[in-house]
Amino acid sequence: MAHITIIGTGSMANAIGGAVADGGNSVDYVAKDAAAATIVGDIVVLAVPYPAVDSVIAQYGAQLAGKVVVDITNPLNFETFDSLVVPVGSSAAAEIQAKLPESRVLKAFNTTFAATLAAKTVGGLPTTVLIAGDDADAKQQLAAVLTAGGLGAIDAGALSRAHELEALGFLQLTLAVGEKVGWTGGFAVAR
Amino acid sequence: MAHITIIGTGSMANAIGGAVADGGNSVDYVAKDAAAATIVGDIVVLAVPYPAVDSVIAQYGAQLAGKVVVDITNPLNFETFDSLVVPVGSSAAAEIQAKLPESRVLKAFNTTFAATLAAKTVGGLPTTVLIAGDDADAKQQLAAVLTAGGLGAIDAGALSRAHELEALGFLQLTLAVGEKVGWTGGFAVAR
Repeated sequence: MAHITIIGTGSMANAIGGAVADGGNSVDYVAKDAAAATIVGDIVVLAVPYPAVDSVIAQYGAQLAGKVVVDITNPLNFETFDSLVVPVGSSAAAEIQAKLPESRVLKAFNTTFAATLAAKTVGGLPTTVLIAGDDADAKQQLAAVLTAGGLGAIDAGALSRAHELEALGFLQLTLAVGEKVGWTGGFAVAR
Repeated sequence: MAHITIIGTGSMANAIGGAVADGGNSVDYVAKDAAAATIVGDIVVLAVPYPAVDSVIAQYGAQLAGKVVVDITNPLNFETFDSLVVPVGSSAAAEIQAKLPESRVLKAFNTTFAATLAAKTVGGLPTTVLIAGDDADAKQQLAAVLTAGGLGAIDAGALSRAHELEALGFLQLTLAVGEKVGWTGGFAVAR
């Protein structure tokens, strides 16, 4: 059985944790502003907004060494909704990997709204999580947890592909805010 | 009735032209290597691979002034399938707009495979064309032609959003080449 720790307690944290539990794997939650906790999971999901990532790394970085760390963020400029706040051509995931060199960082969940993770379906298709990362074993571990929990999972390539996943997440958020798609919809994956 | 000229005669050209005709609008095709033709359409779709765009602009640029020009390209490095050949943070569409300052350039069709345009459905959902551009009237003209032809159409924002559309198209191509999705599948839009 895999053990997953989720840092964060919002709608994404709950939706991801629900799927983990549905698959018979164990999950615990750490509130991002809580007193320092012991991180017990082998896979740790940073289910916090992008601006909160640095403080999570400051608090838990040492404990994350050797673990699989999952970045779910969409690093938008939420004032303009017209750009990302990470360097052009890069990604939040690449920045996090640079700050956590002893962790195996994955990008995942940023292209699936919380409601579609909870429902496990979007537009009649299985909700499918796109996973990017440089460690094949880490990607397989996460994919196994997700498919056990009733979600789809696709290996979307190297961690450098997080740039494209974040572009997709950014685009999807602008479409939802612009009411072109609903928060229960968005991009579905047809195999 | 709108008149659409499609430059190119490949699978994307045929799928786009088929939808135009299905909607009761008129369409003509210009082979990209043909002797110079008269461009009669009000909307001109550059349905050629990215490396062929410059020669099309050299041949037809003057005739494209005042027209709506639709860029459908995915400017991948097809040797590595690991990057785009346009400047980081920019897009093929932005480059084309710079070369055709008297045209109204739109980005569209680069996120929909030819088979899904022809079938008008992907994963059980209506095939939906994402359109980016700076001219609202031009976007509405194209959207009207597409919806008349049985396709979905969404205004995805300003031409700067072509960067995200090209990232999505790039990602989708890597997934298809990696056999993670089929050429009749890919990203569907759930409203």
